[in-house]
Amino acid sequence: MKQDRISSGNQEQQIKAYKKDADYSYTLGAFPTYELIKSMPNQVRKVLLDTSFTDQEHLKSLCREYQIPFEYNNKLITKLSDKENCYVAGIFEKYSCTMSADKPHIVLVNPSNMGNLGTILRTAVGFGIYDIAIILPGADIFNPKTIRGSMGALFKLNIHLYESYEEYRSEFPKHEVFTFMLNGEKTLTLQDCPKAELFALVFGNEATGLNDSFLTAGTSIFIPQSPDVDSLNLTIAVGIGAYAFMNR
Amino acid sequence: MKQDRISSGNQEQQIKAYKKDADYSYTLGAFPTYELIKSMPNQVRKVLLDTSFTDQEHLKSLCREYQIPFEYNNKLITKLSDKENCYVAGIFEKYSCTMSADKPHIVLVNPSNMGNLGTILRTAVGFGIYDIAIILPGADIFNPKTIRGSMGALFKLNIHLYESYEEYRSEFPKHEVFTFMLNGEKTLTLQDCPKAELFALVFGNEATGLNDSFLTAGTSIFIPQSPDVDSLNLTIAVGIGAYAFMNR
Repeated sequence: MKQDRISSGNQEQQIKAYKKDADYSYTLGAFPTYELIKSMPNQVRKVLLDTSFTDQEHLKSLCREYQIPFEYNNKLITKLSDKENCYVAGIFEKYSCTMSADKPHIVLVNPSNMGNLGTILRTAVGFGIYDIAIILPGADIFNPKTIRGSMGALFKLNIHLYESYEEYRSEFPKHEVFTFMLNGEKTLTLQDCPKAELFALVFGNEATGLNDSFLTAGTSIFIPQSPDVDSLNLTIAVGIGAYAFMNR
Repeated sequence: MKQDRISSGNQEQQIKAYKKDADYSYTLGAFPTYELIKSMPNQVRKVLLDTSFTDQEHLKSLCREYQIPFEYNNKLITKLSDKENCYVAGIFEKYSCTMSADKPHIVLVNPSNMGNLGTILRTAVGFGIYDIAIILPGADIFNPKTIRGSMGALFKLNIHLYESYEEYRSEFPKHEVFTFMLNGEKTLTLQDCPKAELFALVFGNEATGLNDSFLTAGTSIFIPQSPDVDSLNLTIAVGIGAYAFMNR
């Protein structure tokens, strides 16, 4: 008979509010916790449930299936979440990934907003791009706010952090590079999206975009937009780029 | 000689933290305040400046140009903004708009998140759609959070609120309707975006999407996406739809 690994609770003092340099983080809410368990079961330390959570049996049976310990701990969930209406949390070990050399990439240069980063990760998965490079400094991929923004899509991705664009590029020299810039040379239209076997779509930071050195890093792309806006939101630009290149 | 309308400050007791049923609202931050002044000068009651704002002369000369009173009031800005790093606010009268009968529309059915709504408004302007219907209940277009999310694009739009989709539709029966749904009939591809002279793109709420009655409201559209995500973020779906229909 399989035994539940129900945590005794004697470790709970160790779980603290999120810190960037800790070796663990956590999902908040049922949906991202399910995604964590199903995509990265070996990384999960334990699952916390609130006694008023309505879908307990489903979650507990999933924990049993993957031999993940669970624990009722309303107090710790409240402490971690800062929010009402959070009934589940999943504590997991941080991990690192390797990007696939033969798959399309999205490269985010210094993304600064965790909510935007989360939305971008969800969108990448939505359009079938599973390999993401983040050029540092950048928003923390394991911060619970990023995870929440991604709706747990983070756990389906190979994300790797690089100190510089050059470091990324030297590892993947074969990808055809497309840099998204307001002064991009090529206007992205539906009829005329570039065709490439293997590509990297490169996007800058929310406030500053990519600097002009990226004009010659590959083919620079302009998403046509009205002069009535300063620019498109970064998440929208990534969405359009990923949609266009993956559906051409 | 033109005289500055410098407010005496005796009205400042009347400006309070935002309320949905108040007849005024306010922009927070320089960028949306500039957009407000340039797009809707007649609606502006006054502009508030913090004494440490770095671009004072530019803002004051813009206020003079449009004969808008301005006032230094660090305390009131702090009270309204809840945030550090806010140095400008623009108090304005709420207003109502009429949608153009001969322009493309975006119809948002029960949008619930103010940040998302703001991003959608900015994206609509970005792709050249200036007429927006909101089917109630929906997030408050004049809430400062929506305005901030829109980066002031709100002030460039004709937004009208409707009690029901039927009310909207009876006013604009000639628009060809496209409803964006996960079970949409027609898959939106780059090569095959529907062509319509005059169209309305209809999107549902963040959590629930459009209900099945919208399958027969026009042509239902599915944006191709991986089964690895529950759905695309609403803002991304609107971005893809607006981009595809405006650039076909």
